[in-house]
Amino acid sequence: MDEGYERIEGVDVGQYVGYRFFRVDPAWRRLPVDERRAGKDAFADVVEEFAGRMEGLRVYSTVGVRPETDLFFWSITPRYDDLLELGAALNGTPLGAWLTTPYSYLGTTKPSAYTDKKRIRQGRVAPRNAPYLVVYPFVKVRPWYFLPFEERAAAMREHAELGARWVTITNHTTYSFGIDDQEFIPAFETEEPADFMHLMMRLRESEASRWTERDTPIFVGKLVDVRDALDALDGAITALPDASTLYTAPDGTHYPAPTR
Amino acid sequence: MDEGYERIEGVDVGQYVGYRFFRVDPAWRRLPVDERRAGKDAFADVVEEFAGRMEGLRVYSTVGVRPETDLFFWSITPRYDDLLELGAALNGTPLGAWLTTPYSYLGTTKPSAYTDKKRIRQGRVAPRNAPYLVVYPFVKVRPWYFLPFEERAAAMREHAELGARWVTITNHTTYSFGIDDQEFIPAFETEEPADFMHLMMRLRESEASRWTERDTPIFVGKLVDVRDALDALDGAITALPDASTLYTAPDGTHYPAPTR
Amino acid sequence: MDEGYERIEGVDVGQYVGYRFFRVDPAWRRLPVDERRAGKDAFADVVEEFAGRMEGLRVYSTVGVRPETDLFFWSITPRYDDLLELGAALNGTPLGAWLTTPYSYLGTTKPSAYTDKKRIRQGRVAPRNAPYLVVYPFVKVRPWYFLPFEERAAAMREHAELGARWVTITNHTTYSFGIDDQEFIPAFETEEPADFMHLMMRLRESEASRWTERDTPIFVGKLVDVRDALDALDGAITALPDASTLYTAPDGTHYPAPTR
Amino acid sequence: MDEGYERIEGVDVGQYVGYRFFRVDPAWRRLPVDERRAGKDAFADVVEEFAGRMEGLRVYSTVGVRPETDLFFWSITPRYDDLLELGAALNGTPLGAWLTTPYSYLGTTKPSAYTDKKRIRQGRVAPRNAPYLVVYPFVKVRPWYFLPFEERAAAMREHAELGARWVTITNHTTYSFGIDDQEFIPAFETEEPADFMHLMMRLRESEASRWTERDTPIFVGKLVDVRDALDALDGAITALPDASTLYTAPDGTHYPAPTR
Amino acid sequence: MDEGYERIEGVDVGQYVGYRFFRVDPAWRRLPVDERRAGKDAFADVVEEFAGRMEGLRVYSTVGVRPETDLFFWSITPRYDDLLELGAALNGTPLGAWLTTPYSYLGTTKPSAYTDKKRIRQGRVAPRNAPYLVVYPFVKVRPWYFLPFEERAAAMREHAELGARWVTITNHTTYSFGIDDQEFIPAFETEEPADFMHLMMRLRESEASRWTERDTPIFVGKLVDVRDALDALDGAITALPDASTLYTAPDGTHYPAPTR
Repeated sequence: MDEGYERIEGVDVGQYVGYRFFRVDPAWRRLPVDERRAGKDAFADVVEEFAGRMEGLRVYSTVGVRPETDLFFWSITPRYDDLLELGAALNGTPLGAWLTTPYSYLGTTKPSAYTDKKRIRQGRVAPRNAPYLVVYPFVKVRPWYFLPFEERAAAMREHAELGARWVTITNHTTYSFGIDDQEFIPAFETEEPADFMHLMMRLRESEASRWTERDTPIFVGKLVDVRDALDALDGAITALPDASTLYTAPDGTHYPAPTR
Repeated sequence: MDEGYERIEGVDVGQYVGYRFFRVDPAWRRLPVDERRAGKDAFADVVEEFAGRMEGLRVYSTVGVRPETDLFFWSITPRYDDLLELGAALNGTPLGAWLTTPYSYLGTTKPSAYTDKKRIRQGRVAPRNAPYLVVYPFVKVRPWYFLPFEERAAAMREHAELGARWVTITNHTTYSFGIDDQEFIPAFETEEPADFMHLMMRLRESEASRWTERDTPIFVGKLVDVRDALDALDGAITALPDASTLYTAPDGTHYPAPTR
Repeated sequence: MDEGYERIEGVDVGQYVGYRFFRVDPAWRRLPVDERRAGKDAFADVVEEFAGRMEGLRVYSTVGVRPETDLFFWSITPRYDDLLELGAALNGTPLGAWLTTPYSYLGTTKPSAYTDKKRIRQGRVAPRNAPYLVVYPFVKVRPWYFLPFEERAAAMREHAELGARWVTITNHTTYSFGIDDQEFIPAFETEEPADFMHLMMRLRESEASRWTERDTPIFVGKLVDVRDALDALDGAITALPDASTLYTAPDGTHYPAPTR
Repeated sequence: MDEGYERIEGVDVGQYVGYRFFRVDPAWRRLPVDERRAGKDAFADVVEEFAGRMEGLRVYSTVGVRPETDLFFWSITPRYDDLLELGAALNGTPLGAWLTTPYSYLGTTKPSAYTDKKRIRQGRVAPRNAPYLVVYPFVKVRPWYFLPFEERAAAMREHAELGARWVTITNHTTYSFGIDDQEFIPAFETEEPADFMHLMMRLRESEASRWTERDTPIFVGKLVDVRDALDALDGAITALPDASTLYTAPDGTHYPAPTR
Repeated sequence: MDEGYERIEGVDVGQYVGYRFFRVDPAWRRLPVDERRAGKDAFADVVEEFAGRMEGLRVYSTVGVRPETDLFFWSITPRYDDLLELGAALNGTPLGAWLTTPYSYLGTTKPSAYTDKKRIRQGRVAPRNAPYLVVYPFVKVRPWYFLPFEERAAAMREHAELGARWVTITNHTTYSFGIDDQEFIPAFETEEPADFMHLMMRLRESEASRWTERDTPIFVGKLVDVRDALDALDGAITALPDASTLYTAPDGTHYPAPTR
């Protein structure tokens, strides 16, 4: 942890990973149905266009559960300005005139200092398209950073080993130091939200948990097609089927995953 | 507390228990009475439809007491997506275009680690349809989780024994670790809010109380028919009678309970 | 403090004491004067009707002083549902369509654990109709509750004795454990707000003060007729005379009090 | 500090000192220019009328600097109800229908417990009409109040002596215990905001600074004529000249002060 | 650190450095395109006019990333009232009727107490026009100010030496004691936001980091032409090119910098 650092031109900066949360103004629901339909279509068109040029752009619905959000994006791209450009393009859609963004989190990937596992060293976020995603901003208390490195590494090993027992839960944590209001953005794919509750309750007794400053708000989203997420905003659909779009994960598998 | 965990397909995940709080935009009260009536009817129809397919969907009024909410739902279902679908369906009603949800809490059931009483081991929430419900989000300080297990168990036994003296108060606490911003959602049915004040004042001196990080906001709701809760929003009724709907509790008793 | 508790049917639960704060949407001031007048009259009619059936319902103006409230109610009633019903009735008035309630506090009376003075043992709130009321939510730090009972009693005696030197200030504290976000709602009648500042500055050095977790926001209201409080909302009056309504205090004296 | 206290009829309660912050709804800027002009004139008329009957009523602009306020009042009066009546009168102006008050602070004067300097013992706020005013709410940590009186007096003497080196900065601190959410309202007149930054940076190392619980938000206002402050709300003027009104300070000097 | 201070007439007070954040009301996007275009043009005209009379006025876009802001200004001027006048002038534009300012930070320059490096002693902020700026408010815990001066100086030297290894990152920290809600406003120019993440993660283990009270919210902006920043508000452009305006940095170089 002590070596200097100098960015070398041409070396990959890693991925920028954004979680952006949207809430529609309730007054939008009073518009004529055709106007709402056109607004949703234009918004979905932009999302689908950017999904084709970014490494990942998935949509999760929080309708009926979180109090202050309706849906969120999970965006993955090596190019920071993709996030700006997506924002500008959505501002140009009719639905963009009725949306606010109560939260938005920005992380980036880097090799973990505490492990030599290949996937984590590689520092790439690779979604497996599970039906639910749990995500939250995370800050440790400052004294953590003054523990001896070996103590921290041991605590993180215990943490990782406990987490690994929950084989249905996949970790996609990224780093936000200095570029957003938290230090980390833990994110977890799971087949069932209650599974994650059991994992987190168990982790409360792990050493790493002792050094937590803040780990809320916690969001649970369901992976859905963007058009379904939008149709849930005004009850145009009242069921939220699993996402049908065929996503290609970095390891080459297609969504929906065969193990579900 | 030390064994591994692996979700087994087909095993019940327990119940999801949601508390969702609604507030109507004051401007809604300026609409013509017929438009308000139609909006309330459509909303109530959705609630009654979902009450028939979920394990429980009760409505509590907070009108005139809490500053930022008008009513809330107590939802119980083994299927997470029921909560999403209820949200989407309400978005499609005219009243949904005038509502915000200042708070929303999500918990799930699991066996308690500290007791072997059958009802709690079973981990099911079973409302008894008392006229008032007190509910709040709850977080313990992290050092609690590093006390020896026996110390924690003793503190929780003292806590439970004190609580049991208030025979008119029924506990329905659920677990939120990792799936919402609190760790627990304590919820208590009671015949009279002042009873619960006396219980909580007494518990301040119990050992478990010492380890509290946060236990607010605290909501007191009155169980009412959904149509009465909605009519209180614009003064269409000015009294809030006890709920008349016949609810069937999981143990087979009907509401209104005979002991009242 | 160690005996069990069981509510016995028919025994008085004490008084529910509510403080409910209102703020009018500034846009309401743009309505035609007749429409505003009608809205204020209907609101005042409801207040006067409920004042006749509750133990107390007084109106205090905060116009021009607090940043986020215009007026508040001090409500006293043995019946919890009176608060709900008052809320529903106000929702039915035209002014109710332009009001929000930035704060609302709920307390209840009980005998104090620290004194045997008759008035306090009796546990009844008895306003004396002084021109100003100071009220705020209050929470003690948890370690207070683990001090030996005698230490707490001594601290509270010192506190009460200091307070008693300010003979023009009357204490009406109620209890909120478990039914609202604070533990206590101290409330004080006074002839002059500056008197209360002197008392509170002096109390900073008393032992009880050391154990304070939170004692804000602090509200100072002036007791006025409800119609005057409403007329101050749009400048229909620019002076706020003392309340002229003859209130009967529980000890039989009438307002305005002869000692003023 | 140990003597009793009893307000004696007829004895001056000191001054009430209010700082009230205003923000105009941006939508007000969309009104026709004549309507805006009339609204500003009526508002200014009220301010000028009350300036004539209160001990002081000055207007400070924060346009372009603070995020959430446009201007604030510094009000000084021995009569509490003047503040209510000013509020009611402003509610009756057309501009009052577009204003909110994000903050409002109330203090009162009293003799300081830590000094026998005549001006402070006298306990009167006497503005000298410097071009800038810095004001903020201030709370000390509770253990401060349990230090021996001599330690506190010594810390306050050091604090005052350091402050006195900045000869261009005038202190007008008032007391808010029990009548507002802070304990003190420090307020400082200065010729140049950067001067005050240097003073406060230096004071960070003084003993009194160690016992600070909260000293934000901090407001810097420029003393201007009320009509100029209002014209800055919609760009009717784009410069903010020094106040031209001749204010008479309590020591008989006139504004603008000859030393500027 | 112990010498007295007295402002001497005619001596430069240093620069005032402001960061002002804007958010457009989503409803603005519903206006006719011509009306939006005219509003943006008038706003840009004001910015360009003030850029010509201030030491610096740069515009950064945060569209699509921060949840609550769309763009921000970095303003540099020796004259405090320039900030007020810019605010008033923007209030006079049609776009000003749809903007709020969720945040605004004010700093000023002074010689650092911990170094004798010439550029810092000089206390001038000199932008180099890098494509990204990271800025945040910063407060240290009070005990920091009671450490021996040498300990603090050593911690700041370590901090500066670590920072200097990131040769692509330029520090422009200013001072806010007493004139805004933070103590410092760190601001950093960088070629790539991820570079700054690596620097800040490394600094977590430096001694100075231990004494942090608050260092959020953290804003990352992209330097763009003001007209591009405004066109991103309604999707009139969906790309955000580097700023094309030729800025002259204080050392005489022109933007875009030749080293990019």
